[in-house]
Amino acid sequence: MLLDPAAQDLLFRQAYTEDRFTGEAVPEDALRAVHDLVRNGPTAFNQQPLRIHLLRSAASRGRLARHLSRSNREKTLAAPLTALLAVDNAFHLRLPELFPAFPGAAALYAEDPGLRERSALMNGSLQAAYFLVGIRAAGLAAGPVSGFDQSGVDREFFPDAEQSALLVVNIGRPAATGPRPRAPRLAYDEVHRTL
Amino acid sequence: MLLDPAAQDLLFRQAYTEDRFTGEAVPEDALRAVHDLVRNGPTAFNQQPLRIHLLRSAASRGRLARHLSRSNREKTLAAPLTALLAVDNAFHLRLPELFPAFPGAAALYAEDPGLRERSALMNGSLQAAYFLVGIRAAGLAAGPVSGFDQSGVDREFFPDAEQSALLVVNIGRPAATGPRPRAPRLAYDEVHRTL
Repeated sequence: MLLDPAAQDLLFRQAYTEDRFTGEAVPEDALRAVHDLVRNGPTAFNQQPLRIHLLRSAASRGRLARHLSRSNREKTLAAPLTALLAVDNAFHLRLPELFPAFPGAAALYAEDPGLRERSALMNGSLQAAYFLVGIRAAGLAAGPVSGFDQSGVDREFFPDAEQSALLVVNIGRPAATGPRPRAPRLAYDEVHRTL
Repeated sequence: MLLDPAAQDLLFRQAYTEDRFTGEAVPEDALRAVHDLVRNGPTAFNQQPLRIHLLRSAASRGRLARHLSRSNREKTLAAPLTALLAVDNAFHLRLPELFPAFPGAAALYAEDPGLRERSALMNGSLQAAYFLVGIRAAGLAAGPVSGFDQSGVDREFFPDAEQSALLVVNIGRPAATGPRPRAPRLAYDEVHRTL
């Protein structure tokens, strides 16, 4: 590993999905710094479909909470900040500007809604992972939550189907620090094979 | 940013999607180190659907190459290592072991093939992003390629539909180093809104 051990700990080895945070607020400056770092991450044709809704008001948090399972609702309402991550279903309209090297890219996705949906989900998820890594890089902790009623959230926040919800991420400073038990991970040989 | 500037450069700011590599081989030890780091990344219900096929033989590389576009074929055949990233379509069968806290998780996905497919794609993509970050953390460069005939690759490598191809990643030491032009990235205010 060329990455130094402290960075390995910060981003992966000592980083955990957090449910409980201190009361300290998450300033916009921190989120701007995260974006400035992780926007560099690669996506197919540079499509960058991810959109991030920062639910800061009690009203917006409440609109989300009613579509969460009870345990996710409680931790979400208690978090200093909740980000609703979604994908722009019309991401392809930006491609002439974002990926001028392939002028046909926008038409490719315009003609094939299934490909467009799959590509938004896949590349939005790549960007969601970069965002989680970036939150940790900023010294914050993330609590990603995927247990929600997706069609309910979509109707609530995106009535014109302009975006589709991907992931809810609670963000703040973790209430607990230091090593703790982690759910089991697959071994190298369970994940890899050589052909 | 708590992450030090050298690590920011290594993982994001000075990292690029690479098409051309030196001839230096990628040893298995490096891939084991990447796995040891990024396996810690979060997935929903700890499902870890990603599987990685290391195409080291000329025969396996050729089986993939015939499903790539011409430009992707040339750079893939020239790369020191090509990894075919895929998702395990039966990932849910491992959940009783991987996420014992919710014994009903496996049944949830068994009953709903659409949810299972979406979840594998989303969480496999999160893990693909962790893998790309891990490759860079190891001092290597990655060239992710999503322009391939997915159903062709699936028939070629997964005739029983046991897995689905996600992303091809060429890996090696980059032939070029240092800053270079980067395709435009969306600004903070184009991606975020506060509610």
